[in-house]
Amino acid sequence: MAEEVSSEKIFKEFKEHSISEFFRKNSQMLGYSGKVRSLTTIVHEYVSNSLDACEEAGILPDISVEIKELENGKYAVGVGDNGPGIPSKIVGKALATVLAGTKFHRYLQQRGQQGIGASGCTLFSKITTGKDIRVRAMTERENYGCEVTIDIISNRPLISNFVKDGSRKERGTSIYGEFGDVKYENSDHGVYEYLKRTALSNPHATIRLLDPTGKESLFVRATDEMPKKAKETKPHPLGISTNDLVEFAHRSTAKNVGVFLAEAFSRVSQGKVAELREIAKEVNFDAAPRSLRWKDAESIVNAFKQVKWVGPEMDSLSTIGEKQIEIAIRNILNPKFLSVVERKPKVFRGGIPFVVEAGIAYGGDAGKRTGEKKEGEEEGSASNVEGSVLRFANKVPLLFDGSNCAITEAVRSIQWKRYGIARFEEEPVSVLINISSVYVPYSGVGKQAVAQEDEIIEEIKLAAMDCGRTLQRYLSGIRNMAAQESKYKTIMRYVDQLSGDLSEITGKSSIEIKASLKALVESRYKPAEGRRLAEEEKENEAEADEGEEEAEE
Amino acid sequence: MAEEVSSEKIFKEFKEHSISEFFRKNSQMLGYSGKVRSLTTIVHEYVSNSLDACEEAGILPDISVEIKELENGKYAVGVGDNGPGIPSKIVGKALATVLAGTKFHRYLQQRGQQGIGASGCTLFSKITTGKDIRVRAMTERENYGCEVTIDIISNRPLISNFVKDGSRKERGTSIYGEFGDVKYENSDHGVYEYLKRTALSNPHATIRLLDPTGKESLFVRATDEMPKKAKETKPHPLGISTNDLVEFAHRSTAKNVGVFLAEAFSRVSQGKVAELREIAKEVNFDAAPRSLRWKDAESIVNAFKQVKWVGPEMDSLSTIGEKQIEIAIRNILNPKFLSVVERKPKVFRGGIPFVVEAGIAYGGDAGKRTGEKKEGEEEGSASNVEGSVLRFANKVPLLFDGSNCAITEAVRSIQWKRYGIARFEEEPVSVLINISSVYVPYSGVGKQAVAQEDEIIEEIKLAAMDCGRTLQRYLSGIRNMAAQESKYKTIMRYVDQLSGDLSEITGKSSIEIKASLKALVESRYKPAEGRRLAEEEKENEAEADEGEEEAEE
Repeated sequence: MAEEVSSEKIFKEFKEHSISEFFRKNSQMLGYSGKVRSLTTIVHEYVSNSLDACEEAGILPDISVEIKELENGKYAVGVGDNGPGIPSKIVGKALATVLAGTKFHRYLQQRGQQGIGASGCTLFSKITTGKDIRVRAMTERENYGCEVTIDIISNRPLISNFVKDGSRKERGTSIYGEFGDVKYENSDHGVYEYLKRTALSNPHATIRLLDPTGKESLFVRATDEMPKKAKETKPHPLGISTNDLVEFAHRSTAKNVGVFLAEAFSRVSQGKVAELREIAKEVNFDAAPRSLRWKDAESIVNAFKQVKWVGPEMDSLSTIGEKQIEIAIRNILNPKFLSVVERKPKVFRGGIPFVVEAGIAYGGDAGKRTGEKKEGEEEGSASNVEGSVLRFANKVPLLFDGSNCAITEAVRSIQWKRYGIARFEEEPVSVLINISSVYVPYSGVGKQAVAQEDEIIEEIKLAAMDCGRTLQRYLSGIRNMAAQESKYKTIMRYVDQLSGDLSEITGKSSIEIKASLKALVESRYKPAEGRRLAEEEKENEAEADEGEEEAEE
Repeated sequence: MAEEVSSEKIFKEFKEHSISEFFRKNSQMLGYSGKVRSLTTIVHEYVSNSLDACEEAGILPDISVEIKELENGKYAVGVGDNGPGIPSKIVGKALATVLAGTKFHRYLQQRGQQGIGASGCTLFSKITTGKDIRVRAMTERENYGCEVTIDIISNRPLISNFVKDGSRKERGTSIYGEFGDVKYENSDHGVYEYLKRTALSNPHATIRLLDPTGKESLFVRATDEMPKKAKETKPHPLGISTNDLVEFAHRSTAKNVGVFLAEAFSRVSQGKVAELREIAKEVNFDAAPRSLRWKDAESIVNAFKQVKWVGPEMDSLSTIGEKQIEIAIRNILNPKFLSVVERKPKVFRGGIPFVVEAGIAYGGDAGKRTGEKKEGEEEGSASNVEGSVLRFANKVPLLFDGSNCAITEAVRSIQWKRYGIARFEEEPVSVLINISSVYVPYSGVGKQAVAQEDEIIEEIKLAAMDCGRTLQRYLSGIRNMAAQESKYKTIMRYVDQLSGDLSEITGKSSIEIKASLKALVESRYKPAEGRRLAEEEKENEAEADEGEEEAEE
């Protein structure tokens, strides 16, 4: 045996590290892996922030993205918006402190939720070019410009060249950064496709892209109506873990536990507090919440489960909308058939509300690999299933890591044969899913895949199956038509012969007989091209509207 | 348009959060998603730490894992080892500060590399049970016990009930924790399978499992030889980014840039520094490293690329070994055929050394879904490819997130038809891959999948293809035999008829003719059962040893 080494020696290099150091070393976890993906990640982070800020401020977004190729294979990315403008006193932390932001602790449906994205861009710019990020912003109070970078060791912002009187003419924020290890490519997982899908799922936004070749693409807003504003909500008692309750209580300044419960959570009235008192008799509801112990909290959480609650407030959710999903699918896939459904909101983990929208497309470009091909991957290689699933979360297109996502998992697990699809991977069929929630449980920091929570998978399955039933009727319609068409042709082949024979037997003119035979066959067998299809589709839509639920097995 | 909201209001709730808060909210990113997976994650974190500590201390590991079911569906997990013992002065941070540890900043191949795992367990225990983690440890200097938990808001340890004089009789560390939202299941992605595979890839370890039913499983070490110890190394100049160089330089106390380069990086001699001076003429190599600017660092990194370097030090890598992989495959899959290859070490990102080992198995349980079935998933659903890939990184079995992993991706992208496998997903074939490196680029914090780096994927492909060629010869051997067998049977069917006919023509006894015809046919066509196969296999092994490389297309 080798000589043993002392624990003093082994542990002498024990150190602490900042979250920014961690992500410098593991930038692939933020989505910086592969040059094309990295560029899409940068644009995604900035555009998501702009959309969030505009939505919260009640402004119809005008977003402009400019990408230029610099020397040495580096790129410049500029993103400007007409949003509320980021105040100078927080600009440093917002752009250069990982895990700082307005979103992490709020129960509000937003695209961002972690306080990582924009700081991740600053970090990635620094480690690939050593450059600072330039910001110009105009709020209702100020108009300034500055440069920001991140001190990676301490996870702190470094601000320089602050100019108090900026040159902006309008409210909003513009960000300019330079990046290495990125590449602009007009592929299905590149910036253009990302922005196109973003525009489709955010029809109230106008998005302009100036690409490195100088080509301008303009996605003009389809509606001047702001999307239904997602309301900030409080957590529902059924979604609260014992640990949550203890932490909330210890930070509360409420007079006593009863008041605290009513203040901190949604749907908790004084009447409900009285019910809880009855059930959790061992808990002192008149004590200060700061002294709430684990055991008491556990009793309250158990009591929560025994009280009858009104469900979570659903106006905390904002969807893409059926009409817009239809437009998006037509635009991306140009299918022969499509069906869309918006489900009723549900909850997962007991109390976190979410809602699923689904669309199914058949024919056209459906089923063709559009959005998820990886760099260097062969067309049509092993699993094509990802190519047939268009994924969105909180209206943000997800272009990467699809194989690891609850959405793909749910769609994949459906027994498609029941819906007239023999092999989902091989037929011209695509499914679009958008999941909206105040908290989307992403499986990774890069937020490209939804974690495989059972309740979410189940709900996505039900939504896709809703659409599947409509598709099935369409497909069996087509198949019936094809069967009739074939009968018609077979019979017509005998009409000549038969009319001759009948003419001999009856002595009537074979021409007359032929004409009436033809009329007879046509009236009974000839498919009424087109008409039948159109009707079928209308019927389908009507049924989809009813949105009835059927559980599978 | 809705009324606009001021930016002051929108950004007033701007806050910073600790990494532990982030992971409390997103524990799924650490691997805590699904009850069975969560339990495996806990065992994985503690056992990996024990193996690392023993390996570094030069101790043959004896690891004991005990899992008990408590009331309320909660579980107790105890893991004990005979390692060096964790010193009391760092026990708090080691177990209850996310991103603290000995491993993050070192160029040393270890199972852990982030300083997240054990603290993640403490966090998960706290949020699911409110309990502390109990520790007992004996080092060469002390023998103590205490309880540890994490203050989630500040990411700081809280230590209580510290006992200076512990009751341990032997060196080592024992950890006991209680956890909710976990479940013991004797399934293919549960604790038993995890430990079995860990024992197979770490034949120098003895691992004992006492499961909640009271059943004891003992995986006894197969060898008393410590694995080749991975040497701590310095980064290779070709793996250094400009930003790395700036950061290293700014922390250096070396006299000047030239000395700093020779001290900080591997393979940089004074002679090489002289070469670098010649190339990067604009850089002042006599200045203090602390003053190194981005531009200078960029010039040095460019100069690095122009100098001829000896490759990275490969004794920084420790593998499972061909023989042990063979044993592991036989144990897990009991195949009819297998072939194993260890490739030569390679580098990715310019200078990070890694090495790939591969094995291929055919027949027996190969190709059957063993390790990656997800909870609730149907057998044989869409992509079975994951079931056919046994993944290891730094000798740690990876049981989850396979669809997102460079290993699966590489195996999937091989044109298996060339190797006699018509559809990889449907034949009785499995591929085992282990990748070892001082830095494995995991795609997520939970370290269950390797990021899809091109150089790594390419090397895994080459390794699997090496094995594939041997498999192909085996399969074509089988197929030849089958073809001969069929020819033999066909001809034998005519022997009776023919001997009668020949007897009539020649007047000779049909019995004699039949006998000689039979002998003739047998000597030419009858397959020499078994013999041929055995020979083929030997041949294959010999060829695999040569380990020649062939690039595909």
